[in-house]
Amino acid sequence: MTKRKSATQESPADASSETPQRESRPSPGGLEALLRPRSVAVVGATPRRGSIGRELLNNIVVSDFNGVVYPVHPKAPYVHSMKAYRSILDIPDEIDLAVVIVPRDYVARVVDECGQKGVRALCVISAGFREIGGEGAEREKELMALVEKHGLRMVGPNCMGLMSMQPDVMLNATFAPANPGSGRLGFLSQSGALGQSILQNMEALNIGISHFVSIGNSADIKSHDLLSYWENDEHTDVVALYMESLGDPQLLFEVARRVSKRKPLVVVKSGRTEAGARAASSHTGALSATDVVADAFLHQCGAIRADTTEEMLALLTGFCRAPLPSGPRVGILTNSGGPGIMATDAIVTGGLEMAKWSEKTLRAIDEMLPQEASRGNPIDLTAWGTEDAYRKILPMLFADPNVDMIMALFAPPLMVDPAKVARAIAESRHGHEKPIVGVIMAEESSYKMLPREIPDCPPIFPFPEMAVKVLFEMYHYTEWRKRPEGAVRGFDGCRREAREILGKYVGQGSGYLPTVDCMRVLECYGFPTAPVIETQGAEEALAAAQQLGYPVTFKAAGRKFVHKSDWGGVVLNIKNDLELQGAHAQIKRAIEKMGANPDEEAGLVQCMATPGREVILGVNVDPKVGPVLLFGMGGKYVEVMKDIAMRIPPITDVDAREMVRAIRGYPLLEGVRGEEPVALELLEEMLMRLSQMALDLPEITELDLNPVILNPDPKECTVVDARIRVRGAKAAK
Amino acid sequence: MTKRKSATQESPADASSETPQRESRPSPGGLEALLRPRSVAVVGATPRRGSIGRELLNNIVVSDFNGVVYPVHPKAPYVHSMKAYRSILDIPDEIDLAVVIVPRDYVARVVDECGQKGVRALCVISAGFREIGGEGAEREKELMALVEKHGLRMVGPNCMGLMSMQPDVMLNATFAPANPGSGRLGFLSQSGALGQSILQNMEALNIGISHFVSIGNSADIKSHDLLSYWENDEHTDVVALYMESLGDPQLLFEVARRVSKRKPLVVVKSGRTEAGARAASSHTGALSATDVVADAFLHQCGAIRADTTEEMLALLTGFCRAPLPSGPRVGILTNSGGPGIMATDAIVTGGLEMAKWSEKTLRAIDEMLPQEASRGNPIDLTAWGTEDAYRKILPMLFADPNVDMIMALFAPPLMVDPAKVARAIAESRHGHEKPIVGVIMAEESSYKMLPREIPDCPPIFPFPEMAVKVLFEMYHYTEWRKRPEGAVRGFDGCRREAREILGKYVGQGSGYLPTVDCMRVLECYGFPTAPVIETQGAEEALAAAQQLGYPVTFKAAGRKFVHKSDWGGVVLNIKNDLELQGAHAQIKRAIEKMGANPDEEAGLVQCMATPGREVILGVNVDPKVGPVLLFGMGGKYVEVMKDIAMRIPPITDVDAREMVRAIRGYPLLEGVRGEEPVALELLEEMLMRLSQMALDLPEITELDLNPVILNPDPKECTVVDARIRVRGAKAAK
Repeated sequence: MTKRKSATQESPADASSETPQRESRPSPGGLEALLRPRSVAVVGATPRRGSIGRELLNNIVVSDFNGVVYPVHPKAPYVHSMKAYRSILDIPDEIDLAVVIVPRDYVARVVDECGQKGVRALCVISAGFREIGGEGAEREKELMALVEKHGLRMVGPNCMGLMSMQPDVMLNATFAPANPGSGRLGFLSQSGALGQSILQNMEALNIGISHFVSIGNSADIKSHDLLSYWENDEHTDVVALYMESLGDPQLLFEVARRVSKRKPLVVVKSGRTEAGARAASSHTGALSATDVVADAFLHQCGAIRADTTEEMLALLTGFCRAPLPSGPRVGILTNSGGPGIMATDAIVTGGLEMAKWSEKTLRAIDEMLPQEASRGNPIDLTAWGTEDAYRKILPMLFADPNVDMIMALFAPPLMVDPAKVARAIAESRHGHEKPIVGVIMAEESSYKMLPREIPDCPPIFPFPEMAVKVLFEMYHYTEWRKRPEGAVRGFDGCRREAREILGKYVGQGSGYLPTVDCMRVLECYGFPTAPVIETQGAEEALAAAQQLGYPVTFKAAGRKFVHKSDWGGVVLNIKNDLELQGAHAQIKRAIEKMGANPDEEAGLVQCMATPGREVILGVNVDPKVGPVLLFGMGGKYVEVMKDIAMRIPPITDVDAREMVRAIRGYPLLEGVRGEEPVALELLEEMLMRLSQMALDLPEITELDLNPVILNPDPKECTVVDARIRVRGAKAAK
Repeated sequence: MTKRKSATQESPADASSETPQRESRPSPGGLEALLRPRSVAVVGATPRRGSIGRELLNNIVVSDFNGVVYPVHPKAPYVHSMKAYRSILDIPDEIDLAVVIVPRDYVARVVDECGQKGVRALCVISAGFREIGGEGAEREKELMALVEKHGLRMVGPNCMGLMSMQPDVMLNATFAPANPGSGRLGFLSQSGALGQSILQNMEALNIGISHFVSIGNSADIKSHDLLSYWENDEHTDVVALYMESLGDPQLLFEVARRVSKRKPLVVVKSGRTEAGARAASSHTGALSATDVVADAFLHQCGAIRADTTEEMLALLTGFCRAPLPSGPRVGILTNSGGPGIMATDAIVTGGLEMAKWSEKTLRAIDEMLPQEASRGNPIDLTAWGTEDAYRKILPMLFADPNVDMIMALFAPPLMVDPAKVARAIAESRHGHEKPIVGVIMAEESSYKMLPREIPDCPPIFPFPEMAVKVLFEMYHYTEWRKRPEGAVRGFDGCRREAREILGKYVGQGSGYLPTVDCMRVLECYGFPTAPVIETQGAEEALAAAQQLGYPVTFKAAGRKFVHKSDWGGVVLNIKNDLELQGAHAQIKRAIEKMGANPDEEAGLVQCMATPGREVILGVNVDPKVGPVLLFGMGGKYVEVMKDIAMRIPPITDVDAREMVRAIRGYPLLEGVRGEEPVALELLEEMLMRLSQMALDLPEITELDLNPVILNPDPKECTVVDARIRVRGAKAAK
């Protein structure tokens, strides 16, 4: 498929060398060709200043790409002082990466030529594909067919290009003004413009990148492909994603969960609201998952979700410019009470702790500070807050074993130069492996230059709250890294029988399964259910009660009835035949009142479960993400409160434990006012069984166990009612 | 008390005049002397550069104070090239305002001399008072005695000074670097340093102020004094407060509620958490109210609470640089999908609406834009997002009657100069009375100069979310202004009888009143209660039941028992004598199990109330704020969820209506799954009655109506149980 000879020299380029090394990198394949190319063709390079083709070419040259770039133009003999070729096929050398900027109707031909030429990777900037719908979507399909036919890997179409800033590559193949330096952040953006604006901010903060990829419509290369690459990339320590959709959620989930254990993964996911999602879908032609699912998804991946681009920048500054903390205890040094209070509020509200100084620190502070200064945490220097004081006290806090993180605040009320204090804070970090953040509440110009001048300059923010947010997320991330993965438990189940039962209903209409079959499916997966018999008429009901033994519950079986207990469709705790006959008559009347014919409706006789605390377990199927597990307290209150925990299967035992504790109503399960806790381990096991069911039985589109009654004794925990709906909305024959 | 002649010339100074006007303002009294003085003495002006006394004096001169300043120094013949006086008594002219910077032990003598001299107002910078506790608090008391003796008004002690920037005053009597221009914002800060840092930011944003007051320990002048001044001050349109405590909450509440109806009142209240409050109390010696109470307090005042200083700055930029919107509909113009999506998310999440373009706008956009641009809201210009496009399209959005607010977004991906687009956005507002905010996601330098160059420059932010927050709060504020005040309803009550009952228990111990007396007090205030009789032994219980009529409830009366239904201390729905005897025996056993002697415990027989939805009403007494009304759903769920609404009495009918709707569980009262709503008007009335009780009966320290059972029929709404505790923790005799 390729015409080139395989490269023989394997040694990487010497980044510090002044002379370009010919054939210095091996001929790369796959994503390597995209991110570490030796030769780049710009197809659609144009001579006119201000055009995308010319600016992109210019960026490649100006960034000092460590390789050769070839402009391709149908007519011009040269572009931007470089010899131009009429077609990529005319280039006499091998091409690793082709950047394509031609009008949309020419893209297919160019890509075909790239395939003939043996190009390895493509970056298609051209727009007019899936994002405009209709014919655009068709055009994208044709494009992908060519890409697959030639075994290429492609970024785009409809993207802004890519950067690869390792010192031995230095490729800026975008057409935008941002020019961040070389660093250790891998950054992917589904919006080129937003990515650019973030890169410009990074440039100002002197946060360098390893790669930037604007993935556009991500027809071929998706976020999970790049995450996989970054997982093992020695040039990348921190990963940032701006996403409008979850790409291929199943693969992304798997890869992201792995990556986040090794490298912090900061994500902005927009399109949170329906209106936002509509805007997102017209933007890159991608459908958004609903935000609650996306939130559960990202949380479970260990991704750190930033709500705003500003927050993302702050978090990246933290992860790129400070070591991870070893605990939650923050020590604060300030020269001003107000900001100290606001920082303390933010720390305690956010779930971190205020450090308690060690004896040694206390003594040292005592010797140094006048009576008026406050020795607690925060240490408030008041008028003694000079550069000198910061230089003397910060090392004590670095040395204090009771302090995991440091925050140095300065508000310039006095005759102290904020630039000097900022420098003292920035320099204090040197040689210490404890995170410090500075907060300088003065003109930005007093500290803006520090990240460029001081190589290990800590993050500096203009206000305390964002600084606390950064410390919080850094601490939380270390906890995530330490968190055991847990294991996905497998349960012996009668998958076969369950599928047989479900199979009877697939494609037979969109209604719910009869309760008796629902319960049987749950029993196949080891759920404790309250035995139930479907009956027709009073005689059958009495016989069923005899069989099950009193006390029983009697309820209407009709699958179209919901909230049965609200309209009198359920009678609990029936103790004898006489009461059962009464219940039967009562429900008959209630059904009539509902406008149905009671003679056509079956009844359910069920063993009466021990009363207890009620919860709901369920499976929903998200159109993009697939099955999602739900858990919440039962009853009307919690329905109104929307207090639901959500996870993507498969869940581990650790996930299940966290899921049970994630709802606000969890204290009710632990027991309030002296109650005993319910059988929490059994509940966790039920969630894991549900997780297995959700993956084992793809025909299920909806599953609700509502209610499940829980008690302290596992033997008194029972699924009392359930609903299952399966695939296939065909009308019943 | 004053030695000066009263001024005769009444005409205000001509601000534009180049020549200072002698005696141009009338001799001012009270806060006028503080904020519009003609002559200022700086007692403690010192020659040494960098000292507080010298820098403050310098600030007064450099800001071109429109009046005379006199340095006072015990020895130096001149300070900063100005003739100095040994004592304020030596100054030959009248002094309106004395700024005191002498060491703490000399403050009293100086203040006494100020009194003798006939000075009208003081600003005491000196520290070492209540904020250091103990002797400092004593020193502050002595200081206040002198202030009161001489009829002075004082800012401080322990403050950073004040500014008064009306063009005819131009006094900067602080010792800090910030130098905001003349404008229409009144700003008070309990932290001088934080205030200064906010002022520096305002300077950068070109937001001018009318006044800045650092109130320090606020021994005399408190936040409500300044609010009262600003309420009618023609120089002030917007008010900002940074507070660590609520000062005199009752007065502040009254004044703030009035001010907020006329001028936006933006508040940062720190010391939210216990740790933060501890830090706050060591800072200015003030005790913080708990944050939930502070939150209810500020909300009810119509104050706009900013969570961070950054948010406060953004909100002030909005209120100072944009007109108020007339509705919630936002129109967005963007050149980039990603930021447009993020803005849309923020708008919908925040409770605003996306505007629907009028037919006229749609047609005009259609004519102007190429096919690729998105015509929905946001309008996404994509590559057509040049300066020209913004200049053409923004006027259409200003003219569109379906648009209440405009957001113009720009992310600079292309070859467009962001400074030009920023200017186009800034200039678009001219002549329109509709708010517009710009979001320029580029280097700050591209738009930073605009507020200085364009007089009516709209707010410009670097990220969309903060811009949305500003629009949201501006909209919300217009709604607050339109919101009817409502009326405080008075109810005929037997206040006298209630006080007689309560009086029996005041000072007699800290326990709760017997249920029968609680119920009687509630009946005095017109609450519907379930009749109840206290009984001793089974015979009395049977007699009581005869008297009340079956069905009844029987419960343990012991005031030390809580959560009676949890341990079997309550039997409901007793239908006859036999069942009552059974209940009596059952509760007797339950009391024994609790370790008490059942023969010493009384029982309560109560008419059985119709079951319904349960709520809790209550009064707590906050040590600073005083009585606070509470309302929430009853039961364990909501206890765990902490779903409580809080208001400060007296509440109006509008307050009561909002309070009922403020809890998350409100849909349960409205009815879910086809239930009828409960008697909401009666519930609101109960809250107003409770409000009256809380103010009528200051002996109450705690009051709980728990539960109150509500039903659709007002006749079936009943207070079933209640607890009252009164003042006086003395042991019972």
